[in-house]
Amino acid sequence: MSQDHLDARRRQILDGARACFARHGYEGATVRRLEEATGLSRGAIFHHFRDKESLFLALAEDDALRMADVVAAQGLVQVMRDLLDEPEKRTEEHAADWLGTRLEVSRRLRTDPDFRGRWAERSEQLTAATRQRLIRQREAGNLRDDVDVTVLTSFLELVLEGLVSHLAMGLPADDMEPVLDLVEETVRRHRRSS
Amino acid sequence: MSQDHLDARRRQILDGARACFARHGYEGATVRRLEEATGLSRGAIFHHFRDKESLFLALAEDDALRMADVVAAQGLVQVMRDLLDEPEKRTEEHAADWLGTRLEVSRRLRTDPDFRGRWAERSEQLTAATRQRLIRQREAGNLRDDVDVTVLTSFLELVLEGLVSHLAMGLPADDMEPVLDLVEETVRRHRRSS
Repeated sequence: MSQDHLDARRRQILDGARACFARHGYEGATVRRLEEATGLSRGAIFHHFRDKESLFLALAEDDALRMADVVAAQGLVQVMRDLLDEPEKRTEEHAADWLGTRLEVSRRLRTDPDFRGRWAERSEQLTAATRQRLIRQREAGNLRDDVDVTVLTSFLELVLEGLVSHLAMGLPADDMEPVLDLVEETVRRHRRSS
Repeated sequence: MSQDHLDARRRQILDGARACFARHGYEGATVRRLEEATGLSRGAIFHHFRDKESLFLALAEDDALRMADVVAAQGLVQVMRDLLDEPEKRTEEHAADWLGTRLEVSRRLRTDPDFRGRWAERSEQLTAATRQRLIRQREAGNLRDDVDVTVLTSFLELVLEGLVSHLAMGLPADDMEPVLDLVEETVRRHRRSS
């Protein structure tokens, strides 16, 4: 197989597995279900990934890198707006599945201390991308300058975490746009107010 | 048994079960583990609660009511600060266990559509308490008046959701105080800024 074929196969496995983990959770994503979701045999799947754990971490990392790209170009609030959008309007087309992965990561972090260490290295890209973007926005004069960039980064990440949780719980999100406007305004340079 | 005894017994079951669900998750909280955690027999437990589902919903409701009391008196940001505090400093002494219950609620809402309906009725107290508190703060002139109370309520709930998720994942929270200061400032009446 050529490198292109290998890459395409890897992508096929990650996309199928993402949907499968999102739907059934980590434990529920059995090898049989992973075969169905990817359209590949277990032999083919585990040729590319050592085990289920490695597959899950690879796709969580894949998601984090993709989100970091959107953050770098458009900011973390845009990532949040994408999560609210109809699938066809999303900048990040895998947002719904990404949501499932992210929730599954949350659950495993809570119940599996070993997983926490392996995840920590992979979760830093999004923070770094958010921070870099905010620093550039501050240099451009678009960011408020009375609050530390570290605090603003944590604030945006906390709201994203809340939104992920909210959406994953299937709670209504049609009233969220003005909330995200408020979040965006909070990190921006203050206009004089009355 | 007198009513006082019945109430005390009910409280004993709820407190033991809360710790048990927080530690093992809903499915992992077996009847045997519930017996150990409460120090009572299954007969005694299911004399008070029809089944495990009813027990779980009762304690989720119990938590929501308790949180609503703190919100009414001190606001939702204080609830968040309590979550960050050392156990001995907490206004809400069950914050850590409450966190586990809340995460378990999140997971079940995601994976169990039937549960969603049963939960909806019980989750409204906290929203109502937050909203009432904000309305009183606006009347007292402490709240910004350029954003609808509904939006501010959703904003605070979203941040709480994020904080719950953050803490439940075991992520470091020692840098969260200035973030909560920013959240509090965002809903308050704007000071003139430069």
